[in-house]
Amino acid sequence: MASVGIVTPQSLRLSAPLPLRSGAVLDDCTLVYETYGTLDATRSNAVLVCHALNASHHVAGRYEGQDKSEGWWDNLIGPGKPLDTDRFFVIGVNNPGSCFGSTGPASTDPKTGRPYGADFPVVTVEDWVDAQARLLDALGIEQLAAVIGGSLGGMQAMSWTLRHPQRVRHAIVVASAPNLSAQNIAFNEVARRSIVTDPDFHGGHYYAHGVVPKRGLRVARMVGHITYLSDDVMASKFGRQTLNPELAYSTQDIEFQIESYLRYQGDKFSDYFDANTYLLITRALDYFDPAREFDGDLSRALAGATAKFLVISFTTDWRFSPERSREIVKALVDNRRDVSYAEIDAPHGHDAFLMTDTRYHNVLRAYFARVADEPVAPAGGLKRFAV
Amino acid sequence: MASVGIVTPQSLRLSAPLPLRSGAVLDDCTLVYETYGTLDATRSNAVLVCHALNASHHVAGRYEGQDKSEGWWDNLIGPGKPLDTDRFFVIGVNNPGSCFGSTGPASTDPKTGRPYGADFPVVTVEDWVDAQARLLDALGIEQLAAVIGGSLGGMQAMSWTLRHPQRVRHAIVVASAPNLSAQNIAFNEVARRSIVTDPDFHGGHYYAHGVVPKRGLRVARMVGHITYLSDDVMASKFGRQTLNPELAYSTQDIEFQIESYLRYQGDKFSDYFDANTYLLITRALDYFDPAREFDGDLSRALAGATAKFLVISFTTDWRFSPERSREIVKALVDNRRDVSYAEIDAPHGHDAFLMTDTRYHNVLRAYFARVADEPVAPAGGLKRFAV
Repeated sequence: MASVGIVTPQSLRLSAPLPLRSGAVLDDCTLVYETYGTLDATRSNAVLVCHALNASHHVAGRYEGQDKSEGWWDNLIGPGKPLDTDRFFVIGVNNPGSCFGSTGPASTDPKTGRPYGADFPVVTVEDWVDAQARLLDALGIEQLAAVIGGSLGGMQAMSWTLRHPQRVRHAIVVASAPNLSAQNIAFNEVARRSIVTDPDFHGGHYYAHGVVPKRGLRVARMVGHITYLSDDVMASKFGRQTLNPELAYSTQDIEFQIESYLRYQGDKFSDYFDANTYLLITRALDYFDPAREFDGDLSRALAGATAKFLVISFTTDWRFSPERSREIVKALVDNRRDVSYAEIDAPHGHDAFLMTDTRYHNVLRAYFARVADEPVAPAGGLKRFAV
Repeated sequence: MASVGIVTPQSLRLSAPLPLRSGAVLDDCTLVYETYGTLDATRSNAVLVCHALNASHHVAGRYEGQDKSEGWWDNLIGPGKPLDTDRFFVIGVNNPGSCFGSTGPASTDPKTGRPYGADFPVVTVEDWVDAQARLLDALGIEQLAAVIGGSLGGMQAMSWTLRHPQRVRHAIVVASAPNLSAQNIAFNEVARRSIVTDPDFHGGHYYAHGVVPKRGLRVARMVGHITYLSDDVMASKFGRQTLNPELAYSTQDIEFQIESYLRYQGDKFSDYFDANTYLLITRALDYFDPAREFDGDLSRALAGATAKFLVISFTTDWRFSPERSREIVKALVDNRRDVSYAEIDAPHGHDAFLMTDTRYHNVLRAYFARVADEPVAPAGGLKRFAV
């Protein structure tokens, strides 16, 4: 199957301030995005891809002259792939608060002329969805054929169906949850404490000090990584394998392969990811909870969603277990919505949503074929959206 | 049921150096210990209690003039309690490398006249068992009626049956495992990296700098604490409860109750626990693996154990799951050993082994009654141990 080939990011400066759920307003917001495939004449074949914690708008294809620059969901998206760019116009967008081009903590705060740092306003899943809707406005897309995301991206897909129900026909929610559990929040809090107590954090204004809280970021990423992998896949990939046949009897040297792997992941991450962004994105995860305004009743919370849903979970995902996906399915069924659910038996844990897994990709391929073949109601039948 | 009342720690300076598994030797080693109940005339009613990560020799009773100074397993041990001090002579001992009185990283290194710090030799479960055996020698106890421990303590109980098979009649292994999984090691490694990358760690010689790597210790404890509790108990105790009815939209302030709880646990721990000890004890956990010398075959590894076993696990313990306990049971059954196994349905996760749970305590009560009532072979029938 072919790649979408060489791609080039584009950017859009929002024409009006973006009001945020916290009450703050992002006065000046630029979104970086990419598109693959062709928007059809009726502008009805757009699929929005929402990214999770450490990903970006660069979803598919590669960058000119850059080896190994494939987008993070390149195995899924391209000509002839499950999300087929011969049939769909696919959009990847970097969320505000991120560190890959859209306005974020490292951007200049127009009020001070210095980087926002820790003063960047707290952003939520709902804020991201609203920013994404502005991008669709600018692209002249009234309604999405589908919105898709894994993990935190799945939360955005869910949120789309609530904030802009008329603008999305299908929502595909992969390896996600209707909210974080106490244990999920606990892991996020460990990561955040690790970052903010690093002396190089400087209250979030480390840019001015020419340093980065790398120690904290490394530990944060190591913790995160453990939760992305299943116990089983860790056991089969690393088990108790040691670096050397003889034990070194050291508390600080690497003794087991799993230590080497985790340290490598932490080091790599701390080289490219922004600490303030990590705080913001883990917090957006914590806050997401559409049922909160409905006394915790998810069925009532999803009553306004009119999209058709595909919900996918992975058996070994202990971060967002199948049980959490089934809560979403149940709430949709309670509302007599059109929902398909696939629980994929995969060994990789939470990370499975990024992997090439035949059963998983076949489910997505079949579902997208259905979306592509479905007759689209004329746009006039839809309530006109406000820009 | 009564408490053992006021207790006083005692100490023993080992009369000879302690050779360690790493090849190093601990030249000067003092053990702090406590005893409860009375050693009978045949010296055959002693029960050794092995402690886990952050506990000590202070297992039962309380200290004169100190409120809330009950020992860590006081709910289990005392007159009329499941481990009945009217029938047993119970010994608690602090392991070398710890920070509660026995020789450890904060002790003076006789070679330098300064605290050992990071130069304290790496200690293993087997080393601890050997040190404990020295204490029994000094107390004139040739054979234990039982050795009992939870978690890392259970590993010591298992190790007793292999290193000193003639000296232990029963081994009670609670909430333990035959070794750490890759995921277990991974969590330990996160904790250690958090500590050693804290600038106040000073390569493990922070005592000389008048500081303590509290930031690292806090994060280490927070990570650990998540693994001690079940997802379920976290959900029922904290769920998504917020500190205030209105969200603050902050990445650094406490928003959820679980964050408050974890920070409190981290703060408390960093006030009393030594960072070098944390490194040593997590490493001892990593290293424990009796099957290692037998190509991973636990049945062969346990072939030399002649003690009778009681193995207990808890359904919601995801740190050392019932599956891991069943591995021990299977290996013992393979060797046609006398083994009882209880899988307790308890909501508390790994921490359940410290809780007052009726079913759990009833199992222990019944088992200890059996141990107490069992006729004891005359000591002459046992091979004389070397002192």
